[in-house]
Amino acid sequence: MSPADRSDASQERPRRVLIVHAHPEPASLNGTLKTFMEQHLRETGHEVQTSDLYAMGWKSALDAGDFMDRDPDARLDIVVDSRHAFDTGTQTPDVVAEQEKLRWADALILQFPLWWFTMPAILKGWVDRVFANGFAYGVGEHSDERWGDRYGEGVFVGKRAMLSVTAGGWDTHYGPRGINGPIEDLLFPINHGILHYPGFEVLPPFVVYRPNKLDTAGHARIRARLAERLDGLWTQPPIAYRMQNGGAYDIPALTLKPGLERPGSNGFAMHIAEESSDQA
Amino acid sequence: MSPADRSDASQERPRRVLIVHAHPEPASLNGTLKTFMEQHLRETGHEVQTSDLYAMGWKSALDAGDFMDRDPDARLDIVVDSRHAFDTGTQTPDVVAEQEKLRWADALILQFPLWWFTMPAILKGWVDRVFANGFAYGVGEHSDERWGDRYGEGVFVGKRAMLSVTAGGWDTHYGPRGINGPIEDLLFPINHGILHYPGFEVLPPFVVYRPNKLDTAGHARIRARLAERLDGLWTQPPIAYRMQNGGAYDIPALTLKPGLERPGSNGFAMHIAEESSDQA
Repeated sequence: MSPADRSDASQERPRRVLIVHAHPEPASLNGTLKTFMEQHLRETGHEVQTSDLYAMGWKSALDAGDFMDRDPDARLDIVVDSRHAFDTGTQTPDVVAEQEKLRWADALILQFPLWWFTMPAILKGWVDRVFANGFAYGVGEHSDERWGDRYGEGVFVGKRAMLSVTAGGWDTHYGPRGINGPIEDLLFPINHGILHYPGFEVLPPFVVYRPNKLDTAGHARIRARLAERLDGLWTQPPIAYRMQNGGAYDIPALTLKPGLERPGSNGFAMHIAEESSDQA
Repeated sequence: MSPADRSDASQERPRRVLIVHAHPEPASLNGTLKTFMEQHLRETGHEVQTSDLYAMGWKSALDAGDFMDRDPDARLDIVVDSRHAFDTGTQTPDVVAEQEKLRWADALILQFPLWWFTMPAILKGWVDRVFANGFAYGVGEHSDERWGDRYGEGVFVGKRAMLSVTAGGWDTHYGPRGINGPIEDLLFPINHGILHYPGFEVLPPFVVYRPNKLDTAGHARIRARLAERLDGLWTQPPIAYRMQNGGAYDIPALTLKPGLERPGSNGFAMHIAEESSDQA
């Protein structure tokens, strides 16, 4: 039995993975990891689609051109115009295609280099444009009793997501006392704010440090580690981010109720219910 | 005496401010705040330049086209090719123009809406492309004794920077226990990783919450608060981010030495030496 259907014997079709890749050089480590993931996932029984953003010439900047049914003389209101375009089927075809891939997928993997401690602009532009109002935000009831279906609810419930990242510098620079800040905190705005927000279960990130210092054996070790993570895609425990509407937060202030955090945790760590599994 | 020269009587020329603005709609709150800042700064004796990225049609995606003197058949290596282009004067003119504005400026203000808890893609693309190797990173000696001139040293030493941000949702959602994470932690990768890194002194951010709920009086209050912040641009204490090469970090591990953090601080807060002034 392949890893793709090991965790759920009742799964009737192969599991589907969408890889969104953001590096301009196919021969880069990021490019080779993307290709390796495609191969390994297919060899283990998955269906795979890849959005190679640079190869696609992806448009990064969200602007009035994203909304095909708006009065060009009217003031652009991203929230209002995004909702109108989503509701009326007047989004641009490139955005619709990505939303369809996301609906198709059981898991999303974002492959990118950490540039200035977050994703490259082209990938941020994929999020800005594809995560439309009515699709990834603005979903569900918004009132004093309920602040939407988000942070554990939303369009991607039942799907999993994982970051695969290369980071210049040493692992210690990104450790608990490292000068860049802990990697899990640097990635929190993505893992929690972009992925958990519309409902993904988010796995711990796969991070490669010092990518430019790898020799052939180092590359082989990286691929072996990544293969293990891919084989655990459906079974590894996700980061235990809290659900907004699960009782842990006061509504509408959306502050964590007193006493729920683990002793000594503050900042982002407060929004994790328990220790997650070790990061690979 | 105007605020522009109040803090340093020996300053012989007007202080200079570069505003980098990232919103596609001039009539948006972001657009009106940008215009208000230009006016207020000029009225108080400053010289101002603005990079209105959407109006400029700024190219977001860093790619091979950024480097005008490279073999098109060679493998693209961003770090190597960026350095070569910077050293040989073969960067693209749009990037060179932004670097010149940065050299000209005494202060940098980034005006943008928080989209998915960070900057819009077009502004990230400004950072990815303008902050070149040899300019904003890769500066100074890199050895086991010294890991470059960064985090408090670098090209922008002596300059100040401030974020001016609009954020959907309530202030409590971004407070110490708020579900989105504390605003100062969400902005840490920008304030510390993008601005402090190449040497800026970083002021606490100016944040407007619930921008779509503002009435006329609310807009007036926002402008008054922002004017105060602009008047304090040269005198307000910056966030007390630590210097990499000031003795607080072990080199080359770049971990904070034991016992230096404030009691109970962990995560990003560990890299702040003392309580900063309240955020406006």
